[in-house]
Amino acid sequence: MRTIAIDAMGGDLAPDEVVKGVATASLQTDIQCVLVGDERRIQEILERVEYNPEQIDIHPAGEVIGMAEEPKDAVRHKRDASILVAARLVADGGADALVSAGNTGAAVLACARHFQVIPGIRKTALASVYPRQTEYPGQDHLALLLDVGATIRCDAIELVQFALMGGAYAKRVSKVASPRVALLNMGTEPTKGSAELVEAHRALQALSGVNFIGNIEGNDLVKGKADVIVTEGLVGNVALKLLEGLAEVMVDMAGAAAEESWRWRLGMRMLAGGVDRLRELADYTTYGGAPILGFQNLFIKAHGRSPARAITNAVKVAAKAARDGVPEEIALGIAGLR
Amino acid sequence: MRTIAIDAMGGDLAPDEVVKGVATASLQTDIQCVLVGDERRIQEILERVEYNPEQIDIHPAGEVIGMAEEPKDAVRHKRDASILVAARLVADGGADALVSAGNTGAAVLACARHFQVIPGIRKTALASVYPRQTEYPGQDHLALLLDVGATIRCDAIELVQFALMGGAYAKRVSKVASPRVALLNMGTEPTKGSAELVEAHRALQALSGVNFIGNIEGNDLVKGKADVIVTEGLVGNVALKLLEGLAEVMVDMAGAAAEESWRWRLGMRMLAGGVDRLRELADYTTYGGAPILGFQNLFIKAHGRSPARAITNAVKVAAKAARDGVPEEIALGIAGLR
Repeated sequence: MRTIAIDAMGGDLAPDEVVKGVATASLQTDIQCVLVGDERRIQEILERVEYNPEQIDIHPAGEVIGMAEEPKDAVRHKRDASILVAARLVADGGADALVSAGNTGAAVLACARHFQVIPGIRKTALASVYPRQTEYPGQDHLALLLDVGATIRCDAIELVQFALMGGAYAKRVSKVASPRVALLNMGTEPTKGSAELVEAHRALQALSGVNFIGNIEGNDLVKGKADVIVTEGLVGNVALKLLEGLAEVMVDMAGAAAEESWRWRLGMRMLAGGVDRLRELADYTTYGGAPILGFQNLFIKAHGRSPARAITNAVKVAAKAARDGVPEEIALGIAGLR
Repeated sequence: MRTIAIDAMGGDLAPDEVVKGVATASLQTDIQCVLVGDERRIQEILERVEYNPEQIDIHPAGEVIGMAEEPKDAVRHKRDASILVAARLVADGGADALVSAGNTGAAVLACARHFQVIPGIRKTALASVYPRQTEYPGQDHLALLLDVGATIRCDAIELVQFALMGGAYAKRVSKVASPRVALLNMGTEPTKGSAELVEAHRALQALSGVNFIGNIEGNDLVKGKADVIVTEGLVGNVALKLLEGLAEVMVDMAGAAAEESWRWRLGMRMLAGGVDRLRELADYTTYGGAPILGFQNLFIKAHGRSPARAITNAVKVAAKAARDGVPEEIALGIAGLR
């Protein structure tokens, strides 16, 4: 039985959807949840929904960091912000992992302030799952991309560490026993790309413990070639947001066309399942949340627009990752590197 | 009246589709075309199609660089390869611009060997057009992304030069009088991203002659915010190939689903126009070709899988860009920088 601290005040739809999502988790699982934030508001929302009171505690926090606030300033001045209080709670052993749908920059800073970095890790990484095609039956339909914005540039050692961390996370959380790890590059040949990429490629090939399949290119991101894709933050951030933007455009296009013509409208009704699939793609960020890897404590960042079911899911993922010992797995891998 | 040299032997569908595409161009336009390659094979293909013999010449070249050949070795050893002969022809004034659907690396090296770099240009850039949503009536439905793979890393001055070159190309070739130029970054604030991006942002804001709108993020790539998007080659290459891969996946998905169920099949028939639109998106690389910018001569790289109509289009784009003086426009802009 694991305890998860949830930043009740973070996210575009907080605290309502966050509290509702946690209420659902308390009914569906045996996870202990600690909602961190405005006690009175959280209580009000809980009174309107079904939940298991034995699995939900409230931990008060008097301030909130807004989605648009400048992270550094906010973290410096709002010492009682829900995300900081929740991170402290986890660091002090009051919970096993942290979930927040709030301001990403502030959340990363809160972790950096309160969590211990795993010995040997040079840079923590923000990872994200996204849906893609699968290549064989049983492959997880979600892949893991890291880093997606915590770093800008990485050297070879940092890329190797990301590969190790992503592999460990996927091994524990996805359905795949030996996740295929790849470097994102502008060509498949080992000599392609920057000096850092070439060196990381060489190091990963020599490394046991990571199922390294070499370089993949941008078009392979949406195919099932690799389960864990490693890149520096600028590239990962652009790729992830592009995926998100494209999915939104497709849903828009389908919707607009459906309004325009009866043929489309009728066709769309026929395709109901297909459109749902498209919408699901646009919605993918609600699936599993984005883990920050490299700290001794786990943090799952849910999408800013997360509805209740995304929060429920993030809480489940956080509990699974904590129970399955993701940080310990990473620590072992890093120790083996040295 | 412009003369365009075409590498008849380059591309997955060469020489057949290349020669057919040029034949069509000779009927639809007043462009003079020089087909460079195996004289006998070119003649054989021409005999099977309609064309205007007054507008097509053949220039012999005895060797071919294959799509999968290692570019450096191939360019070093095959001195009589069609792409090298065609580049020499343009450099010697025998044609105004070059079109090839062949091995991209070899084509870039052929240009580097025979073309003069515009004075002041530090790095040439490979640009690519791609379709996106438009924000206002009259905006071109294609945007220009550069660099997409000629460089790996860029410093601030190189990014500024790319912005200038892309802006000049879009001004001449697209339908937009004052193309909106943006830097691709991991946030919209001027202080986001690497030191190079921050410095390039500052320099572009101070620069007249470029309609700089600031940073855009990955999701904005598929929207109409910017007409010219500037980034270093690794990021641009990943983003472009991801766009291509996603479009392919969507067409696959629609096709597979249509085979699976009568509902989908019927729905798809209703949506015929919509599926064509999807297919067009997957096909976007056939639209306008990818210019290499920074040389005194123009080179338009057509997609490796270009069918005849894509070649026709690339020839038209090359002629337009040469007639409208794109290299001269870039030279003026660069001179103004110093």
